[in-house]
Amino acid sequence: MAYMIRNDVFSCFAFYAVLLVIKMYILAIITGQVRLRKKAFANPEDALRHGGLQFHREDPYVERCRRAHINDMENILPFLFLGAIYSMIGPSLPVARLHFLVFFMARILHSIAYLFALQAPTRSLAYTIAQIPCVSMAVQTLMAVTAYA
Amino acid sequence: MAYMIRNDVFSCFAFYAVLLVIKMYILAIITGQVRLRKKAFANPEDALRHGGLQFHREDPYVERCRRAHINDMENILPFLFLGAIYSMIGPSLPVARLHFLVFFMARILHSIAYLFALQAPTRSLAYTIAQIPCVSMAVQTLMAVTAYA
Amino acid sequence: MAYMIRNDVFSCFAFYAVLLVIKMYILAIITGQVRLRKKAFANPEDALRHGGLQFHREDPYVERCRRAHINDMENILPFLFLGAIYSMIGPSLPVARLHFLVFFMARILHSIAYLFALQAPTRSLAYTIAQIPCVSMAVQTLMAVTAYA
Repeated sequence: MAYMIRNDVFSCFAFYAVLLVIKMYILAIITGQVRLRKKAFANPEDALRHGGLQFHREDPYVERCRRAHINDMENILPFLFLGAIYSMIGPSLPVARLHFLVFFMARILHSIAYLFALQAPTRSLAYTIAQIPCVSMAVQTLMAVTAYA
Repeated sequence: MAYMIRNDVFSCFAFYAVLLVIKMYILAIITGQVRLRKKAFANPEDALRHGGLQFHREDPYVERCRRAHINDMENILPFLFLGAIYSMIGPSLPVARLHFLVFFMARILHSIAYLFALQAPTRSLAYTIAQIPCVSMAVQTLMAVTAYA
Repeated sequence: MAYMIRNDVFSCFAFYAVLLVIKMYILAIITGQVRLRKKAFANPEDALRHGGLQFHREDPYVERCRRAHINDMENILPFLFLGAIYSMIGPSLPVARLHFLVFFMARILHSIAYLFALQAPTRSLAYTIAQIPCVSMAVQTLMAVTAYA
């Protein structure tokens, strides 16, 4: 192992961050499989290949998968940035790990709640819990760099 | 303060970047509040919790908030990357700060113009102004690393 | 040249990553031009400026551009993160460059296939090929940092 990976907090962050990226990839694969099974394609060229233009259509469950994916982009992608710079302001490892772990678990729950349409407010609760470590990291980072604004 | 924060330009970037992430979070909160006030939910399970399936519907102002958020993802998320690597190619602090500040102000204006539906071309102008520092950072970074392609 | 750019792999990554960000910017510009040419605007204030509220409407080709852009966000934005941290675990330059180059070429092909509606499965194939280096980088990074979880 080499360069960066002398920073324990950053390495801990990288672990959960990469798992969440893989989680997003899995969601994309699920969406593709649902499109094939439901025969609902966003593009006419895909529909033509799978039976005809009548399958160039929307499906409620495909749209649900899409919303889950877009919500991931709205939340996990900023985390990839926030977690990285928070790791560089020198937090203690146990505190930092708690931030990453809470976000990770809550976002896994969020995806499950979305895909299985769990009763409200399960999904919103997961979203809100995941935001807590994000806001905490944002505030701590701002305080660390505010002199450079 | 610790590790990274020996690089003044990166710290300056981190300040504006984190503020913009918080701005995106605020936009998500606004969207959620508008959904509740207008009773327009993207998911049937949310509609059921807030009065019934008739509220599983679209609303023009909710869609406007969504478009503002997606435009932020298209522009602010690449900035989080571009600004970080531009900070590492050794620009002077005043020049770098100008890049970050122009982007920051233009994206704040963009969100205001979107949410209040200000007369065209206010929003497009804000978008274009915000792109100028991004293209500048992209070109300078490309020139700095082109030998390694 | 300064700070970071002592890491050859990271510089190589930065080169292709910045080019892909520029590619996303170009897609946004194309979408805007298509909106103007087809007179199909997402916002009433834009339609009013370009001939009237009847042009506040959807257009199939504008929607195609939008889908191409969102697919870029789903794939290129995680790459900006994965490639950066993979660069820091000390891969050999030729192997790393191969990862970046395959992703870069496949995503260029993906955009071309989307915008020109090339026959299926060209676009899906480009997407799948681009995912291979991403999964490879994700797995290698996970293995490098797993002790810090």
